[in-house]
Amino acid sequence: MTSLVIDGNLLLAQLGHLGTIGQDGSGGRTRLAATLADKAGRDQLVVWMHDLALEVRVDTIGNIYGILPGRDRHAPVLMLGSHIDTVINAGMYDGCYGVLAGLAVQRALRQADIVPPCDVVVVAFTNEEGVRYQPDMMGSLVVAGGMPAAAALDVIGTDGTRLGDELARIDYAGDMQPGSIVPGAYLELHVEQGPMLEQAGVTIGAVAHLQGISWQQLTITGQANHAGTTPMTMRRDAGVAAARLTAGLYDYALNSGSTRATVGSMQISPNAINVIPQQVVMTVDIRDPDDTRVDAAETALRAMVDTCCRQLGVDITSERLVRFPAVAFDQTLVARITQAAARRGLSCMPMISGAGHDAQMMARVAPTAMIFVPSRDGISHNPAEYTSEAQLLAGAIVLADVVLQTLGLDEEKK
Amino acid sequence: MTSLVIDGNLLLAQLGHLGTIGQDGSGGRTRLAATLADKAGRDQLVVWMHDLALEVRVDTIGNIYGILPGRDRHAPVLMLGSHIDTVINAGMYDGCYGVLAGLAVQRALRQADIVPPCDVVVVAFTNEEGVRYQPDMMGSLVVAGGMPAAAALDVIGTDGTRLGDELARIDYAGDMQPGSIVPGAYLELHVEQGPMLEQAGVTIGAVAHLQGISWQQLTITGQANHAGTTPMTMRRDAGVAAARLTAGLYDYALNSGSTRATVGSMQISPNAINVIPQQVVMTVDIRDPDDTRVDAAETALRAMVDTCCRQLGVDITSERLVRFPAVAFDQTLVARITQAAARRGLSCMPMISGAGHDAQMMARVAPTAMIFVPSRDGISHNPAEYTSEAQLLAGAIVLADVVLQTLGLDEEKK
Repeated sequence: MTSLVIDGNLLLAQLGHLGTIGQDGSGGRTRLAATLADKAGRDQLVVWMHDLALEVRVDTIGNIYGILPGRDRHAPVLMLGSHIDTVINAGMYDGCYGVLAGLAVQRALRQADIVPPCDVVVVAFTNEEGVRYQPDMMGSLVVAGGMPAAAALDVIGTDGTRLGDELARIDYAGDMQPGSIVPGAYLELHVEQGPMLEQAGVTIGAVAHLQGISWQQLTITGQANHAGTTPMTMRRDAGVAAARLTAGLYDYALNSGSTRATVGSMQISPNAINVIPQQVVMTVDIRDPDDTRVDAAETALRAMVDTCCRQLGVDITSERLVRFPAVAFDQTLVARITQAAARRGLSCMPMISGAGHDAQMMARVAPTAMIFVPSRDGISHNPAEYTSEAQLLAGAIVLADVVLQTLGLDEEKK
Repeated sequence: MTSLVIDGNLLLAQLGHLGTIGQDGSGGRTRLAATLADKAGRDQLVVWMHDLALEVRVDTIGNIYGILPGRDRHAPVLMLGSHIDTVINAGMYDGCYGVLAGLAVQRALRQADIVPPCDVVVVAFTNEEGVRYQPDMMGSLVVAGGMPAAAALDVIGTDGTRLGDELARIDYAGDMQPGSIVPGAYLELHVEQGPMLEQAGVTIGAVAHLQGISWQQLTITGQANHAGTTPMTMRRDAGVAAARLTAGLYDYALNSGSTRATVGSMQISPNAINVIPQQVVMTVDIRDPDDTRVDAAETALRAMVDTCCRQLGVDITSERLVRFPAVAFDQTLVARITQAAARRGLSCMPMISGAGHDAQMMARVAPTAMIFVPSRDGISHNPAEYTSEAQLLAGAIVLADVVLQTLGLDEEKK
């Protein structure tokens, strides 16, 4: 069977180099979307794309495409990619690995003098992380038609800036319409960002599903009062309501078997040692591979909210921030990942992605799948994020094999 | 029976005027200890003391004394007072009422041409609120010998300033040793800052006890991880631990009959919607009129902490911030308050103070009691703090009557 030769040293060197851009002095790097640090990462990526003599295009939402021309320039393309923006104080693999491994596959095609039947395109999507501008996965969401580009460009960030202005400032407001490059398939290689592969001692994850995600923000309003003088029976303690909801949701998820629930963020006011909390604003993150179970968890939460309002005399309003349905990836592509791993003698298991990824958006418009490699201790969004060099190379090799097979090239030279 | 005539209009006018000093543009006033706003309030108080031809003294911790000389200048004095520093965005009665009502009693003594048997001293204690410098009730704590003045002056505030330097800057670093003026009795008139008097429809509270107070800070350390990828069974969620402790402590206090427990403050990190909380720093405020019940609540909390550590895999450390024992006020003085109210035809009830007051410290060194008047809706530490003019005058009249009786003057002129 034909195979491509991945230049592993170059891939690792590029990953390491990209990881030095935007270092924030705390051991990690911070390249929030459309900042000058993001620009520095993008500029480096474009240099590497030019090194491979790719056609480089940028669309209006700032997604960068590196195009290796195929024989039929009009056929739907095979798209590989991910993102290179980061969270605050990030590790160096999340997103970057998928983009740079895509370049490694293109490089291997070049070096094997293979002209693929269609364009092979590596994409770096804008603002996958969603830290500065919401929603996250924005670049791929726009490409998939889930949000008009104009609306995305008008989003005001946490720092008061407008995304469109910031993209123009860093010279990545392109002129191509998002969606102009039509994918025939989309493949995304990514670090797992969770502990499942490591726990199972498995190298390759063939991601079959992506969880449904529900994000809500609850605002609990009670009454501020003196902690010493207000009898327990006369309190309307917003903090106790938040506590009961947090503890109740945790127990619900723990007993559910598959649902994951997290209260990650909470702002209490007035937040003084001797004042009963007047207000708590808290977030709720609910995920499940089965959308009906996401809905069931939301229903259970609503019941807890009603009980809290009744028992504690507080008012609770909820605002939906995100509801992404569960995604089932393309079974043919998932099977190819499993087969490729098997042929390479790499352990592999089907899995569900807990995190959201650009692939989730691209699945709306093209057959899509993801390949995962292990994350040590399941840690991500943290400078301690780590995947071994051997695992990184294994993932890239599997990606290359699946690319060849998807292009129909594994048979040609048999 | 002899009685003094309180100039109610002047008392109310002074209260209103002091309330305009340090207005912060949000409807309240902010005169944190030893700030320029505090200086402005102090300067006004000293002007009013000079208007009454009082001897004005300032001790090294900045407590201001206005002395009406008695026949025996060496006898222990009758001390009246409270504080004029405020919390952030405060109401206008807390503390100020007790100080200005003291001046009103001195004024009435002057106008009745009464030379009391001992000095009658009005004191405004430094930093009762403890917002900028901790601990609270600092000026009276130093007078009561609970903290060396030098240590108090060296306290570094939340804004990085040293109290001693700030007192010098505002010209209130006096040269008198705290404790030089020896109280034979201490009386503090104060707004209740709680709902009990209003709920009972009673005008005067004869405060017989002050609750024991325990303040702790708990630091819960779990593990930050991705909310989507980390299975429920593999989490160490510091936020869930905080929630269980908050809810558990509330239920404990609710069922205890007398204990009050509040988690008023919580800082979560990293505080992101999709990250399991790594750390929560939370405060616990426990109060009970019975110190053994404060201790029992602390023990119950420790058991909850142990359970959380075991069940949730988190580490929890606790730091004691404050433990003030319960105080029983002087029964003779409390009885005089009740009798005075009865003679004036004012409804009166014995009560427990939930809040801490300077009287709590002064009770260590002299027979002490407090008089409470109602707070509308129990609200305090808030611009909405309100006590009616009639209630304010009733409190001052009762104070004057108790002063006369304590000085032995109610009998003399019978």
